Amino acid sequence: MTLRDYHLTLRDVSDQQPEYLETVFSLGNGHFGVRANDPISGNPIAGTLINGFYETAPITYGEAGVGYAKRHQTILNLPDLRHIHVSTSSGHQFTHSKRTAVDLDLGTGELVEHYQISTDQGETIMMGVKSVIGQEQTSMWSAEYTFTAGNYAGGLLVSKSIAVPAEAEAIMSADPRKTRMAGLPICETEFVTQDLQRYHVKTRLTKQAVTMYLGILLPHGQLLQQPLDLSDEQPHSLEYAVYVGTVGKHNTIDPAAMFMASSLASLTDDSQTFWQGVWNRSEVSVGGNDELDLAIHYNIFQLNQAAGRDGRTNISAKGLSGAGYEGHYFWDTEMYMLPYFTYTNQQMARQLLVYRYQTLPKARERARALGVDQGALFAWRTINGEEASAYFPAGTAQYHIDADIAYAVGKYFEITRDLDFVIQCGFEMVLETARFWENFGSWRQVGDDCRFEFHTVTGPDEYTALVNNNYYTNRLAKHNFELVVELAHQMMKRSPQLLSKFGMSETDLDVYQNLADHVYLPYSNELEINEQDDSFLDKPRWPAEKSTPDNFPLLLHYHPLTIYRYQVAKQADTLLADYLFPEDLSADQLKREYRYYEGVTTHDSSLSRSIFSILAARMGDTEKAYRYFMDTARMDLVNLQKNTADGLHLANLGGSWLALVAGFSGFYVQDEVVHFANHLPAELSRLTYRMKIAESVLEIDLTADNLDVTVISGPIPTYGVSVNGELISLVKVS
Amino acid sequence: MTLRDYHLTLRDVSDQQPEYLETVFSLGNGHFGVRANDPISGNPIAGTLINGFYETAPITYGEAGVGYAKRHQTILNLPDLRHIHVSTSSGHQFTHSKRTAVDLDLGTGELVEHYQISTDQGETIMMGVKSVIGQEQTSMWSAEYTFTAGNYAGGLLVSKSIAVPAEAEAIMSADPRKTRMAGLPICETEFVTQDLQRYHVKTRLTKQAVTMYLGILLPHGQLLQQPLDLSDEQPHSLEYAVYVGTVGKHNTIDPAAMFMASSLASLTDDSQTFWQGVWNRSEVSVGGNDELDLAIHYNIFQLNQAAGRDGRTNISAKGLSGAGYEGHYFWDTEMYMLPYFTYTNQQMARQLLVYRYQTLPKARERARALGVDQGALFAWRTINGEEASAYFPAGTAQYHIDADIAYAVGKYFEITRDLDFVIQCGFEMVLETARFWENFGSWRQVGDDCRFEFHTVTGPDEYTALVNNNYYTNRLAKHNFELVVELAHQMMKRSPQLLSKFGMSETDLDVYQNLADHVYLPYSNELEINEQDDSFLDKPRWPAEKSTPDNFPLLLHYHPLTIYRYQVAKQADTLLADYLFPEDLSADQLKREYRYYEGVTTHDSSLSRSIFSILAARMGDTEKAYRYFMDTARMDLVNLQKNTADGLHLANLGGSWLALVAGFSGFYVQDEVVHFANHLPAELSRLTYRMKIAESVLEIDLTADNLDVTVISGPIPTYGVSVNGELISLVKVS
Repeated sequence: MTLRDYHLTLRDVSDQQPEYLETVFSLGNGHFGVRANDPISGNPIAGTLINGFYETAPITYGEAGVGYAKRHQTILNLPDLRHIHVSTSSGHQFTHSKRTAVDLDLGTGELVEHYQISTDQGETIMMGVKSVIGQEQTSMWSAEYTFTAGNYAGGLLVSKSIAVPAEAEAIMSADPRKTRMAGLPICETEFVTQDLQRYHVKTRLTKQAVTMYLGILLPHGQLLQQPLDLSDEQPHSLEYAVYVGTVGKHNTIDPAAMFMASSLASLTDDSQTFWQGVWNRSEVSVGGNDELDLAIHYNIFQLNQAAGRDGRTNISAKGLSGAGYEGHYFWDTEMYMLPYFTYTNQQMARQLLVYRYQTLPKARERARALGVDQGALFAWRTINGEEASAYFPAGTAQYHIDADIAYAVGKYFEITRDLDFVIQCGFEMVLETARFWENFGSWRQVGDDCRFEFHTVTGPDEYTALVNNNYYTNRLAKHNFELVVELAHQMMKRSPQLLSKFGMSETDLDVYQNLADHVYLPYSNELEINEQDDSFLDKPRWPAEKSTPDNFPLLLHYHPLTIYRYQVAKQADTLLADYLFPEDLSADQLKREYRYYEGVTTHDSSLSRSIFSILAARMGDTEKAYRYFMDTARMDLVNLQKNTADGLHLANLGGSWLALVAGFSGFYVQDEVVHFANHLPAELSRLTYRMKIAESVLEIDLTADNLDVTVISGPIPTYGVSVNGELISLVKVS
Repeated sequence: MTLRDYHLTLRDVSDQQPEYLETVFSLGNGHFGVRANDPISGNPIAGTLINGFYETAPITYGEAGVGYAKRHQTILNLPDLRHIHVSTSSGHQFTHSKRTAVDLDLGTGELVEHYQISTDQGETIMMGVKSVIGQEQTSMWSAEYTFTAGNYAGGLLVSKSIAVPAEAEAIMSADPRKTRMAGLPICETEFVTQDLQRYHVKTRLTKQAVTMYLGILLPHGQLLQQPLDLSDEQPHSLEYAVYVGTVGKHNTIDPAAMFMASSLASLTDDSQTFWQGVWNRSEVSVGGNDELDLAIHYNIFQLNQAAGRDGRTNISAKGLSGAGYEGHYFWDTEMYMLPYFTYTNQQMARQLLVYRYQTLPKARERARALGVDQGALFAWRTINGEEASAYFPAGTAQYHIDADIAYAVGKYFEITRDLDFVIQCGFEMVLETARFWENFGSWRQVGDDCRFEFHTVTGPDEYTALVNNNYYTNRLAKHNFELVVELAHQMMKRSPQLLSKFGMSETDLDVYQNLADHVYLPYSNELEINEQDDSFLDKPRWPAEKSTPDNFPLLLHYHPLTIYRYQVAKQADTLLADYLFPEDLSADQLKREYRYYEGVTTHDSSLSRSIFSILAARMGDTEKAYRYFMDTARMDLVNLQKNTADGLHLANLGGSWLALVAGFSGFYVQDEVVHFANHLPAELSRLTYRMKIAESVLEIDLTADNLDVTVISGPIPTYGVSVNGELISLVKVS
């Protein structure tokens, strides 16, 4: 597979609203993100997001209760690094701006923009901005601003600083998907040299601090410079760099020296090297639809930009592209985004799981607050590990996050065989979540049937709250129990003593196996499908007269009580479990379930369509799979959910990759066999992608009537590989 | 029956904490209430509550949502009318105070208190306070302060004003049963004469206003008086009166003239006349337990003090005795307090229902906000008719309030035959609530069974939220449908055209009859009992290890999610329906249900024990009935719930009357027959009480082996009267 060039331009996106473009063309490196604000007229006090840099505030409830989450956590929306002041030598400010062209190079990470800027007096010039964010040097961002004469061709004064936020009021929106405005940080500014300004930004309550530097790289020695002279009609360039320190770390670097090594050119090299690595590991090529091919590259690009790499941060719901959902990390990471990393970048996957491991002490406390005396309950939404969900029926009650995290640990181990990680972090997470389920659930005898049940939970579908025996939750909890047993046996192979490290003996494993064997999975004999929960199928369907297009998403038009009393789902719920455990049900049952739940699902969540695409592909309905995939793959590029301005839908970006891999190529792993199946839609001529299983990088290549799997680096794998149901032998190509 | 004297004194109450005594000895007249604050050391800025005088504030939610209640409503805690400044002629202030005796005369409404008061310097004198609140003149309160020498016998300076509230911060408590602190009102003060001070109190947001006057009655002409001279060792008295105007009405009275007619003596006459009327109508005598006899008199006394009489106010959860629950009106009125009035004071019952009728336009709006296109949903908690419940799972979701109000209308009509009220107000309420249920519920076919069901509701038991087919809710909704049909037929008897006034025809009645016939009532074949809801019996029971006494009430110790996932009830729920509809189930089923639900009920709600008492009595377990009744009857006198300081438990006061009447004497009305049965506990030698059915005042007299019903005024009734299952003929005595 040849690595092609991919560029996202203004022509590739459906919307030209500034806030939308700011999100779509944002740059990030896991540490910080820079929204593509208009440098002239954009928002100087907001535009930079540092992963894990947040402020807190007490949560005020209309009516408070025991054990409620106490504090908001809100990512700080820091000053725009891109803002620039430009004026004529006579003092006319350039305050108007028109974005004429944008080009984001997905192969190098370089963002090139062109603006036509003008003064109130009608003086107009051209401004180009070339910017890049460091990928190895994750503290760095550089930009070159280039000015060319237009109808104005005189002297030009340019100056740049990072605006210090003015006071702003906290906002509350009735749209829970937006962010709150965090309290403003304290910002101290000083000039280190004439060329170098230091910003020390401290939060008031979380007592976090970050040091930032703004330096002028070219021309040297003039932060406050002489006017440029545009009369020669040549382009005149200025180059700046910004350093964004590590949260909570005292920066002892010599920034001046650092800037010398951080020219736009060298940072572009750094970025290019990084992206070459990404594409080498995870190149995807979709033949037959260039739009789609570009979209999937864009999605992978943004996933990589968003993911915290340091084991102390994670991937927020909007990545570093916007402050929506307050910069919180959800179950989205483990179930929608982590798979991409698990199968293409094992080290990154490990780091994301290490983040969760770090929050385990807080998860134990949270279990106690919920009246569960053993185990740990991970926060539904959080930055620092504490629960920050201020609406528990669709927050804390989504206990399934515990089993989701355990599931991700299991998948990570399945692919990497990284037993060290299991011993150091993974097993403890799986065990503590299993202990939670053990103590949270309860036994119930129904006739001859002895069931282990879970009551008053909310599943992935947030349009159905506080129900009993949510199928997804129960199925994942069952797996959580099984995983304790499986990982314990793996550890015992290395050393039989390891179990005692966790206060366990082999007889404890029988307890978990027994629990796993008895977890109740609701099934409707009448419809011959798994039931979303004990009562979902009893409720009336969402009425036709409330189904006009402007009533969606329902959560913005109806009281939760109205939504809850109907049989209506925001997203894939039981079907999500079906996707995770393909061995659970026959093809016929899957078809019945799919047909049933598709009829009651609004896809108001961006986490829905990718799963519907995957299952449609598996069922052989590749036309439907393709349709869902198109919405998934291009969700933000076409602003499908109409709120991309608040940030990208990161889970959906991950879901679109899953749709290709788990859907069109039928990928899943079970019992040390890697399965593929050709479900390529007729609309696509070819699909090629790479993934790494154990030590081998595989390339999978599908055309209408062929599916090839080859080893492109690493050893010939020892695990089985099955294509369309038959085991094959792999060949290594070079 | 002879009307005896009843007095409540300090010896009759278990607690001597000031805040507790302030509640217990509070005076009220439906218009306003005066807590019995210590006049020397009490709380000068809080102590007076005016029914329906409230401030509002936006409700802040941790995470807001569509259709959520928007505004708090909080009764204003206005300045203490009883506060007095006393100092020696040398300027030593009496700041210490000891309450040595209190006597509340339940026959006259007169409150007599004795205090020993002293200065920092140890000077001590005696102070007596005699106070009374007007009952016909509901704007008036008067008090006489009498001073007698102690170790100090010199000059005494006395002055009095109504303190103007200082700024105070809004408080939020994790105990939802307490009040919020409302925003402070604007208070303008001026001297009308030397003896008369006017206070004009305005709220900031609700724009309500009340005019109050404080006047000195005796001695005349000295609001700022000469020192009293205690050296003669005689008692010296001062007499004050306070006028509390009508909320929102401009007071055009001549207060000076009014005060002349409002001496303590004439106000005591007024009060005494009122209470004579109350006891004439509703005298109760309990033989064999004087404590209990006093307690039930106290309860009736406080019910009458609390109830708004003007058709624009109602009975708040704490009456006018405290600001707990923000002065809100709940379903408590219709289900626990109204019956006492319906059966003893038909005019008052009508006024309380008129209040609800006034809120019908807001109830229609609320139904729309909950996605129900027809009918009306009354506010779960409110003062002005708007929903003020800031936690909808245990607030708005208690839709049953609609059917409770309809039930109360039905009972009112059953007893009064007041068809004019039905035509003017009652039918519209019953019809609009029935329309709500019709559009809120849904049809479901289960086998051959076609059911009308209600999903995602919360029943009376607030420890179980958002369930399907709550038995109580469904049973009451069924009755709501039946009531439309019944009242419609009653109206048609007067005029067949009346139905069309409500946009109805006779065929519409068939629709409601059909709905009534098909409302689903969950029943467990296994346990042979009615099920609290579709899933209550499936849940595990509250665990023993979480059942130590200091874990109750559960709501103050556990997250709602923890409580909701267990089979645990705060109060009578299914049993409350059993009490309302005694014809629904056999004696055996009642016994089974009682045993079952008693085992899972914590009685953390003050609305629980009275119902358990009534049903135990009906089942013949009079010993248990008596035990529950003792806790019910004396709940506030022994501070059983430990929060009487926040106000009396008004619903329980009403419940205790119900326990006597519906429990010990087995009273209920069905199909125009009034039923009684003798369930007098062995602990009581006799029970006598009065009630009015239609135009006849009955006296019911029970001893161990006898139950007599006689007519003491009005005609011999035309309805049947049954005692112990046999119809009897009534005799009129004089």
